[in-house]
Amino acid sequence: MSPKKIKTLHEKRHRKESGLFLVEGDKNIREILTSDFTIVELHGTPDFLKTIEREIQAYEMSKKTRITLHETSEAELVRLGSFMSNNAGIAIAEQKSVTTLESMLEQAKKDIVLVLDDVRDPGNFGTIIRTAEWYGVTHIITSPTTVDFYNSKVITATMGSFTRVTTLTAELEEVFKAAKELALPIVTADMHGQNIHETTITQHGLLVFGSESHGVSQLAKSYMTNTLAIPRFGNAESLNVSVAAGILLDALRRA
Amino acid sequence: MSPKKIKTLHEKRHRKESGLFLVEGDKNIREILTSDFTIVELHGTPDFLKTIEREIQAYEMSKKTRITLHETSEAELVRLGSFMSNNAGIAIAEQKSVTTLESMLEQAKKDIVLVLDDVRDPGNFGTIIRTAEWYGVTHIITSPTTVDFYNSKVITATMGSFTRVTTLTAELEEVFKAAKELALPIVTADMHGQNIHETTITQHGLLVFGSESHGVSQLAKSYMTNTLAIPRFGNAESLNVSVAAGILLDALRRA
Repeated sequence: MSPKKIKTLHEKRHRKESGLFLVEGDKNIREILTSDFTIVELHGTPDFLKTIEREIQAYEMSKKTRITLHETSEAELVRLGSFMSNNAGIAIAEQKSVTTLESMLEQAKKDIVLVLDDVRDPGNFGTIIRTAEWYGVTHIITSPTTVDFYNSKVITATMGSFTRVTTLTAELEEVFKAAKELALPIVTADMHGQNIHETTITQHGLLVFGSESHGVSQLAKSYMTNTLAIPRFGNAESLNVSVAAGILLDALRRA
Repeated sequence: MSPKKIKTLHEKRHRKESGLFLVEGDKNIREILTSDFTIVELHGTPDFLKTIEREIQAYEMSKKTRITLHETSEAELVRLGSFMSNNAGIAIAEQKSVTTLESMLEQAKKDIVLVLDDVRDPGNFGTIIRTAEWYGVTHIITSPTTVDFYNSKVITATMGSFTRVTTLTAELEEVFKAAKELALPIVTADMHGQNIHETTITQHGLLVFGSESHGVSQLAKSYMTNTLAIPRFGNAESLNVSVAAGILLDALRRA
């Protein structure tokens, strides 16, 4: 694939058209090699390609296919990708077919499904995926306004967890309506909710996080069945959404 | 101050020489106006300066001094600062005199003092400051290799909490030695520690977080009196350091 074409994959529109996405850096490339994603091309420094020779062989054996390898300089990797420096590589991979709302709701009957309502920062989204997967929460629904899962900065921040989660982008009104019909808990996180240090938290249903700037939306509030608060002991006005998600997921798994 | 001089404040060396630093964007400028920091200059869009007129007056009244105001276009604010877009402003402020190791250790006798050992990412450091302050932990010691507190990306990520914390950069060997002599708890966070869901956590002493890539250092390990683990329920290999700090601080305040 030409450098020009690779660079277009930093734009959501081109990712959507091609069904491809970029995976940058050592850790995430190693993770995708052992996942069920299909890798189309792998650009790497000669050193890095040598280091992961075995992983590439294992991938090719299990998938019965070859990866097109390109030896690429660090400078060229920086030009192609979003990193300030990259002494490893960039993989071009195929996006996976998305799951259905029905299967997300099936999951929400037995475990927590995260819902991200307008989370805009790719670092925050990627970090939430990584944290959720640490706590064994692998299903995530995002609003159409949430940053794209296949954004390369999201993928980078997941530190490999992108290979082990299932996501769906959907209009949240539809999601909440369907959840309500199934009488699933719809839980939001908000300053005015029940103190998580003093509450037993539901072990299934939807756990909704709002945007960095506006918190939980009116729509989510109109459907929520419960709201939880992280108690504050100092003067900061709010918590970063990915930190708040971590604290709530930890509270959840204490139950 | 000339645009050229302002831009030099993105470099640690120039911040050190001048004793000045940059504060960017609406939230952080509002916070510094009500803090005990001294503001040297304020560059803002005409609209933003109008919006914060009262806060500026209150600042000038209480400090019995005037802030030099400059009406500046959004484009110029972007050129001067580190934001991709900035429709508010940039303040130039004086750094505060640092505290002593002795006063940090005094604090550690009665409450938790955070120690950041080689945290490199400004977003992580800023988010840790914000979270610590949410939990009422206001004293933070950093290793010389940790990103500079006055880095404008650190300041931005604190969401105003930088005005309410006390920091000290020190050689950690010296810090740990002094803490050991005082028999203060030195607690690290590590995968192999005691499960925080099953442990009572000390309410004073040093709580140490290691680097994004290498975790807790050998030095910290050689001085630690206890180590705590955040239990894992899924497959992610690690947590982001600012998320881990949030989960540990929350666990601490449950006690």
